[in-house]
Amino acid sequence: MDEQRPVGRWGSDELGLDPRTRAFALAHLGPASPAPAPRPRTPRPTRVGADRWQALFPGIDIRLDDETRLRHSRGMSYLDLLFWRTAAGNGGVPAVDAVAFPADHEQALTLVQTCSREGIACVPVGGGTSVTGGITLAGEESTDAHQTPVLAISLTRMDALVAFDAESAIATVQAGMTGPALEAALDGYTLGHFPQSWERASIGGFIAARSSGQSSGGYGRIEDMLIGAELATPVGSWRVGGYPAASRGPDLRQLVLGSEGTLGIITSAEVRVRPAPSIREYAAALVPSPAGGFDPGIDIARTLTRSALRPTVLRVCDPSETDALLTMSAPTGLVGRAFDAYVRMRRARPGCLVILGWEGTDPATVAAARAFARGTLGDAGGVWLGGGPGRSWERGRFHGPYLRDQLMDVGYLVETFETVIRWSQLPRLHRELTSVAREAIGPRSYVMAHISHTYDTAASVYFTVLAGGWSDPHDAAGRWQDAKARITESIVAGGGGLSHHHGVGRDHAGFLGDQIGPIGMQAMAAVKASLDPANIMNPGALLGGDRE
Amino acid sequence: MDEQRPVGRWGSDELGLDPRTRAFALAHLGPASPAPAPRPRTPRPTRVGADRWQALFPGIDIRLDDETRLRHSRGMSYLDLLFWRTAAGNGGVPAVDAVAFPADHEQALTLVQTCSREGIACVPVGGGTSVTGGITLAGEESTDAHQTPVLAISLTRMDALVAFDAESAIATVQAGMTGPALEAALDGYTLGHFPQSWERASIGGFIAARSSGQSSGGYGRIEDMLIGAELATPVGSWRVGGYPAASRGPDLRQLVLGSEGTLGIITSAEVRVRPAPSIREYAAALVPSPAGGFDPGIDIARTLTRSALRPTVLRVCDPSETDALLTMSAPTGLVGRAFDAYVRMRRARPGCLVILGWEGTDPATVAAARAFARGTLGDAGGVWLGGGPGRSWERGRFHGPYLRDQLMDVGYLVETFETVIRWSQLPRLHRELTSVAREAIGPRSYVMAHISHTYDTAASVYFTVLAGGWSDPHDAAGRWQDAKARITESIVAGGGGLSHHHGVGRDHAGFLGDQIGPIGMQAMAAVKASLDPANIMNPGALLGGDRE
Repeated sequence: MDEQRPVGRWGSDELGLDPRTRAFALAHLGPASPAPAPRPRTPRPTRVGADRWQALFPGIDIRLDDETRLRHSRGMSYLDLLFWRTAAGNGGVPAVDAVAFPADHEQALTLVQTCSREGIACVPVGGGTSVTGGITLAGEESTDAHQTPVLAISLTRMDALVAFDAESAIATVQAGMTGPALEAALDGYTLGHFPQSWERASIGGFIAARSSGQSSGGYGRIEDMLIGAELATPVGSWRVGGYPAASRGPDLRQLVLGSEGTLGIITSAEVRVRPAPSIREYAAALVPSPAGGFDPGIDIARTLTRSALRPTVLRVCDPSETDALLTMSAPTGLVGRAFDAYVRMRRARPGCLVILGWEGTDPATVAAARAFARGTLGDAGGVWLGGGPGRSWERGRFHGPYLRDQLMDVGYLVETFETVIRWSQLPRLHRELTSVAREAIGPRSYVMAHISHTYDTAASVYFTVLAGGWSDPHDAAGRWQDAKARITESIVAGGGGLSHHHGVGRDHAGFLGDQIGPIGMQAMAAVKASLDPANIMNPGALLGGDRE
Repeated sequence: MDEQRPVGRWGSDELGLDPRTRAFALAHLGPASPAPAPRPRTPRPTRVGADRWQALFPGIDIRLDDETRLRHSRGMSYLDLLFWRTAAGNGGVPAVDAVAFPADHEQALTLVQTCSREGIACVPVGGGTSVTGGITLAGEESTDAHQTPVLAISLTRMDALVAFDAESAIATVQAGMTGPALEAALDGYTLGHFPQSWERASIGGFIAARSSGQSSGGYGRIEDMLIGAELATPVGSWRVGGYPAASRGPDLRQLVLGSEGTLGIITSAEVRVRPAPSIREYAAALVPSPAGGFDPGIDIARTLTRSALRPTVLRVCDPSETDALLTMSAPTGLVGRAFDAYVRMRRARPGCLVILGWEGTDPATVAAARAFARGTLGDAGGVWLGGGPGRSWERGRFHGPYLRDQLMDVGYLVETFETVIRWSQLPRLHRELTSVAREAIGPRSYVMAHISHTYDTAASVYFTVLAGGWSDPHDAAGRWQDAKARITESIVAGGGGLSHHHGVGRDHAGFLGDQIGPIGMQAMAAVKASLDPANIMNPGALLGGDRE
């Protein structure tokens, strides 16, 4: 976790709210009404004192100061961020009792094994960017209800590239490395994993959450990259994997991927890397949708995906998100006014904005892929917007969380949710969720979506919801929890996956049983009980039944 | 299981042993000395009579005749085939006590749940093609040692295409469909999964064994194709998956893939399909290896793999296999004498034969992939052999098991083994295994290998071993078991995967703990105990501890 960042925000304020974005918000969400700024909070007293930690873990860096404890007690969801803006109640707010900073696998192992013996809950924290309550302790109401002490275990100090096998293109990395640190260390190579949380999230977190990045079309999901991993579990050190594929029973890597800290701490990983691309091209196009719906965009996404020449990056916006992106702009301006006029002239609106990227080292291959995309878009009557808007997208690809801070500052609701659904069911579910989200959020709201990751058989749909009149953080938290519950119910009822790349955490845990059935839950509980017999690893996440 | 085929053989004799193959064998393995032909055997008496089966399972087709029982008691490994050539001992040979043929999921569920209650072991049987003892009961020595009755459950009757979602490219198929039946039913589409066992193996078996086909470069492994599955387990019906990817905890499909019948019966699967390729091109090339080693072939395999334009089929032979394939010939002749002369003239021998295939529906994409391969091979000094040898390979791609029958008829050892290993360790492990196999098999042997499946980070190496003087089936069985143990020890000690696509079965079960460690075994045992509390599902396979 980056302790230089301000509390309660993704980043600093330096990006500022763009005037066009402000105008868009005003037009659709109503006037801004500033929300309380994030503020330092006072944690409840630790239930285990420094002497006791020292006696349990001599030689391990354990901190008990208020700020460190609070920073490691919440993730980065809208609700998490609201927490920092909420007025203090009586007494301190929930917080972990201490934060450990193991220096290596052995220290991590000591921590979890001792905690298992002592009945202390452990919450592994990488970048602390979970947006599904993956590391978030239960609400204030439960402050006095439970006695189990909680130790956050930060992977911050375990941030080294351990080994590099260039011939096999496998890097062995400690789990605490952030996205940028890993890319820098891979000098000449890339992991190719760029979720929007990339700047702060860690490789261990990518694995634990079963994450997927913006370049998944070219590089795949984190599970396509993971060759092997080592975990510190309550029952000992556990190495999984070792090969990209094998036929030796169930693939145990796939129990670790998505384990969300409930089985042990991922301390290192072997990941597939690729030569850093010498060619990086981005472009955008508009596919007209005369009826104003998403179908032409869905069709183009599916066609572009089902080819060996699929783009490295492919994002297809519904008409609402297309309008927003062409009107609002990222800090650097996604599409300028000139383009907008050009496009309207070409009668490509209403339409679906398509963002495309190609990365590689072989010019002929990239050229073939680009030609395939242009031909496919041309067949669909698409209007090519060229490289400018594509590069603008690329420059702003990690700006979403900063923009969220700024919109929250001026009292707007801003949150996202996502799902995965088969192509044949996507148009219906997109319509349903748009409608449910609008109803659940109420007036002065804006609901938009894009296809963010694609497969031969399915795609993920990523929704952004905005609304005005959410300036009171306490009121907003309750309203959003209600709306989120209705939305998640609709996802599950509509055949969508509970999450495509955000994870389960505590926010979705209550729905997991509906998704995977009682025998699936039973199988997962059996593994959990076997590896974490005292149920101390991130209790409450993924499988529910929070102990905190 | 195809009950029209002769017992103890893969197929009928109609292909005959090609004269050039016979000459090659004579030169390298010494003169042939005919082995006893496969013969009908007498099973030991069933331990549960027809009345009892009838009472337990009214309305379910259960057969107790000798041939049906014996056919469902063994797979298709060299040892399995030797069994049918071995002289009868005293009393009957081990056999399952009955064979059930459920008509649907509900009957399969009734079978496993009742067997769980009654303490009857269940062995699911698809095509019966396991080469690792996946369905093979323990040896004759244990005939009287155990009392647990065994019921084989054949999926033969569950062989329908249940649903087809063309827009999502997902087919729902019953698990008993064989490769050819599935491809025929998919009219206009293809699964693209073509292991050498394709003609007889079933979709359920592909999943249970975690199989990979010859076109894996283009279509991926079975786990890349599996969207979801339904199982009949002792604790109830279990549906896993539903999406190509999701972020909702561990991927439970990956517990089913490779489960080898130990958790339940896979009764149906949802699989990704693709449009049947309108373009299918095959070709071959020779990469010179002046020093006679495998390195130039390994290098070309790695380079061809690490591209979006990788071939659909890629097989690269070591110089020994290259010599064999250019001398022996498949029934239709892989490379004729003219080519051989041409190639020697071009000084490409010693060398590594490269088999390439491209499949698709878009001419430009296939052309780009072919151009990429030709350019890469050209850079490596490769000699293009053209489409003829490639098409010959394609015609003979499923002939290996027939050839094995014929070589066994004339008293030769013929068996295969395979592993997966990172690129950087592949050259060393290939040398070690070649040497260990030669030593373990003894004189008059021929050991050859090819890279059969490739990934960015690793590849599988597939060895074929041949030897003369193995005419006595009983003697041969013991000798091969000893040799196989030495080879498997070397694979594990040398960092290779226990199997890349053949599975664990009973033959490799004793080595699994060395590969995945005690915590991996513990996790698997926990899942097994949870879903199969009476340990009746294929006991002895995968996890060891045979009850039979």
